[in-house]
Amino acid sequence: MRSQKSHFILFLLVLTFTSIKAQKEDSLFIRKAYDIALTEGHAYENLRSLCKDVGARLSGSPQADSAVVWAKRLLESYDFDSVWLMPVTVPHWVRGDIEEAGFNGKPMNVKTLGGSVSSNGKIEAEVIEVHDFEELEELGEEKVKGKIVFYNRPMDAKLISTGQAYGGCVNQRWGGASEAAKFGAVGVFVRSMSHHQDEHAHTGSMGYEEGVKKIPSIAISLPDANRLSAQLKKQKDLKAYMNVNPQVLPDKESFNVIAEIKGTEESGKIITFGGHLDSWDVGEGAHDDGAGVIHSIEALRIMKEMGYRPKHTLRCVLFMNEENGNRGGKTYAAVAKEKGEVHYAALESDGGGFVPRGFTLDASPENVKQMQSWEPLLEPYNLHIFKAGWGGVDIGPLKKQGVPLIGLRVDDQRYFDHHHSDTDVFENVHKRELELGAASFASMIYLVDKYGLGEDTLEGVKEE
Amino acid sequence: MRSQKSHFILFLLVLTFTSIKAQKEDSLFIRKAYDIALTEGHAYENLRSLCKDVGARLSGSPQADSAVVWAKRLLESYDFDSVWLMPVTVPHWVRGDIEEAGFNGKPMNVKTLGGSVSSNGKIEAEVIEVHDFEELEELGEEKVKGKIVFYNRPMDAKLISTGQAYGGCVNQRWGGASEAAKFGAVGVFVRSMSHHQDEHAHTGSMGYEEGVKKIPSIAISLPDANRLSAQLKKQKDLKAYMNVNPQVLPDKESFNVIAEIKGTEESGKIITFGGHLDSWDVGEGAHDDGAGVIHSIEALRIMKEMGYRPKHTLRCVLFMNEENGNRGGKTYAAVAKEKGEVHYAALESDGGGFVPRGFTLDASPENVKQMQSWEPLLEPYNLHIFKAGWGGVDIGPLKKQGVPLIGLRVDDQRYFDHHHSDTDVFENVHKRELELGAASFASMIYLVDKYGLGEDTLEGVKEE
Repeated sequence: MRSQKSHFILFLLVLTFTSIKAQKEDSLFIRKAYDIALTEGHAYENLRSLCKDVGARLSGSPQADSAVVWAKRLLESYDFDSVWLMPVTVPHWVRGDIEEAGFNGKPMNVKTLGGSVSSNGKIEAEVIEVHDFEELEELGEEKVKGKIVFYNRPMDAKLISTGQAYGGCVNQRWGGASEAAKFGAVGVFVRSMSHHQDEHAHTGSMGYEEGVKKIPSIAISLPDANRLSAQLKKQKDLKAYMNVNPQVLPDKESFNVIAEIKGTEESGKIITFGGHLDSWDVGEGAHDDGAGVIHSIEALRIMKEMGYRPKHTLRCVLFMNEENGNRGGKTYAAVAKEKGEVHYAALESDGGGFVPRGFTLDASPENVKQMQSWEPLLEPYNLHIFKAGWGGVDIGPLKKQGVPLIGLRVDDQRYFDHHHSDTDVFENVHKRELELGAASFASMIYLVDKYGLGEDTLEGVKEE
Repeated sequence: MRSQKSHFILFLLVLTFTSIKAQKEDSLFIRKAYDIALTEGHAYENLRSLCKDVGARLSGSPQADSAVVWAKRLLESYDFDSVWLMPVTVPHWVRGDIEEAGFNGKPMNVKTLGGSVSSNGKIEAEVIEVHDFEELEELGEEKVKGKIVFYNRPMDAKLISTGQAYGGCVNQRWGGASEAAKFGAVGVFVRSMSHHQDEHAHTGSMGYEEGVKKIPSIAISLPDANRLSAQLKKQKDLKAYMNVNPQVLPDKESFNVIAEIKGTEESGKIITFGGHLDSWDVGEGAHDDGAGVIHSIEALRIMKEMGYRPKHTLRCVLFMNEENGNRGGKTYAAVAKEKGEVHYAALESDGGGFVPRGFTLDASPENVKQMQSWEPLLEPYNLHIFKAGWGGVDIGPLKKQGVPLIGLRVDDQRYFDHHHSDTDVFENVHKRELELGAASFASMIYLVDKYGLGEDTLEGVKEE
């Protein structure tokens, strides 16, 4: 008994010693990653180049083609183990050159929603304001037919998470046109999805229900939405106009852009991390998702710069077409399945370049617990969110293959100020906040590579 | 035995029940405080008024007088139990109308440091660059005499806390002139205390050592500091000029502005909370410390709006003269002592209007533990810093009276971009971030009032 006990104590001591040693190594690694990001980082200049040299880059556009070339060249310049393009067939919607709406002789600031059909010339009709689909249904065909439906439900200011507030009203944007068309509406105005009262309208994707007439749908700025709503209270028969000429062109070939550092021990197991290379065709796609692209490239660059030899294969994927189809994400998962690739974990940054707060994990409670065990290592960097939650749109299709999905969480108070609008430009990204995001992303990738998210954790520690 | 045990179990059950009830009440109170701040808040419009109607408000200036009138009027409009002015004698330094420096025929962007003497006309002299006082001492009189000393130690980008980085180089600004004068320097340039590479210089306070010759000291913008440093490498005998004419005028009467809601049970015990009403004479003092002023006013207003009847007396104090003398804070503590006031706790917001992160407490480890016990109530609002640390400059003098000091911690990545510069304006404060700060401040004041920070905690719970 005694002997077994002392063996056990010895075992515990060794384990504690190895664990302390590993923790110290981890601390040093993470500290160094932040040091590099903050003092010799490429993040800010790379984002400047993506925003200014390439600019807005909607799937199918010449700018999206440029973005692919830009990303491939940049990744190649870092001399990773390999860089390649994965073909993706993307939708090709173009905004057109007419984008007008207004009432009482005064134009509104508007953006045609992505995917909308053309109005085929100017539509003029009475406007009816609703706040949700239930209200629309109650009004019914009698009150809706022949009119422009104006969806005016705002994002809920009480919700601390602006993402949650966005989630609470984005169905107006996505499905509002078809719901209104069912009752004979001729067009749709949607209040921009934002808390920020500036003059810019916020675009975004919408879709049509099969078998329902397609009517044009456009976003209007918050001040215009407020003005229109106020006027409707005074003038029940108020007429407004809209004139937009977007077009759907044939699908086009594009690419996910991929770079890899091969794993040393388990190169067959892949840790995918990325953001999306496409953006809407307004602003410069700086936060959405230039920041995620840059976080991902910079994370791999920092690993390389530090001479880190990962156990698993680290793969940085810049996805094409998150905004209006997620073809990049779907193709990536399909190819992985087809090739029988084993994906160990996938991480995404698609919340902007704001100050990082932590990570959410879409996987088992055990996996979440494992991630939470790393909190002491990351708390000095003001990361505090380590909980179950959203991974990301692009990595989402990997979920079916059982891959744990991790989302980088950055502070979201300012995100929807700029989201899908003209102000999503380089100047609205803060250098240090962007850099901190890149270092946080690199640190999480390192921890996942070293310890895994599941049962293989102790294995990881033992291998030290 | 058995009977005692069941009594004990009953006692525990009652305690648990009361504790759950209290927790629920607390949750509801805090939720409501955030709801009010985010949906019917006055914070943003009040800050706009302070910034645009009053503007920059250095102690002794007519604008500081206006700020006192503005604050008193605003507080009176909210119908608190009492509003009054506490006289404070403040220093009166004025920038003057000449503020020039440059080299090789090109001017630099500069700000005379607060407290600096005049150059008495144009000084032209060789420049010698140093990074700390040790380097200056090594150079000695031989190399320094008759020259302008250029302090160029930057804020350390590796430090996650920008406040810590500021602390690591602000001695150049505060004490650089006297240190240089000891070796016969004729003037001082100080690299602006900021990470942000814009064209604005950042002012701030400096002081002179008694018995040392007073020489003028001015801050230069980061691009100018970099340009000057680069030129000095090429041109050892580079001459620069400076011409500034600030003045010290006689001390002036001013005021702390105070509003109070009387306590219901322990009105003799006071919870003081505030920010400072004065600012530098550049920008609009929006973050520093318009935000703290607004957080404090809004916190008290929210309490009143909710009909909250505090146990202790809640006192909102808008201190005068934090920036160049802290006379407001010193006077407040002296008056408290003189009157024999009992201060239960003091809170300060002086970190700007950025997204809140939590609180630091300058008190005993037991007090810190008590504050940490509230974390579950505040975590839904993304507050995660609950640890020992800094209270605030204005409330600092209360420390000698044994008062626990609490500082609101907001995210500090952007703070020194604007600190003491022309860009500290209303437009650089984010509405929701400001509102979240006010609600966080109100919630902490509520918890301190209800539970206290020390041994009286259980008393607080029992009273439920």
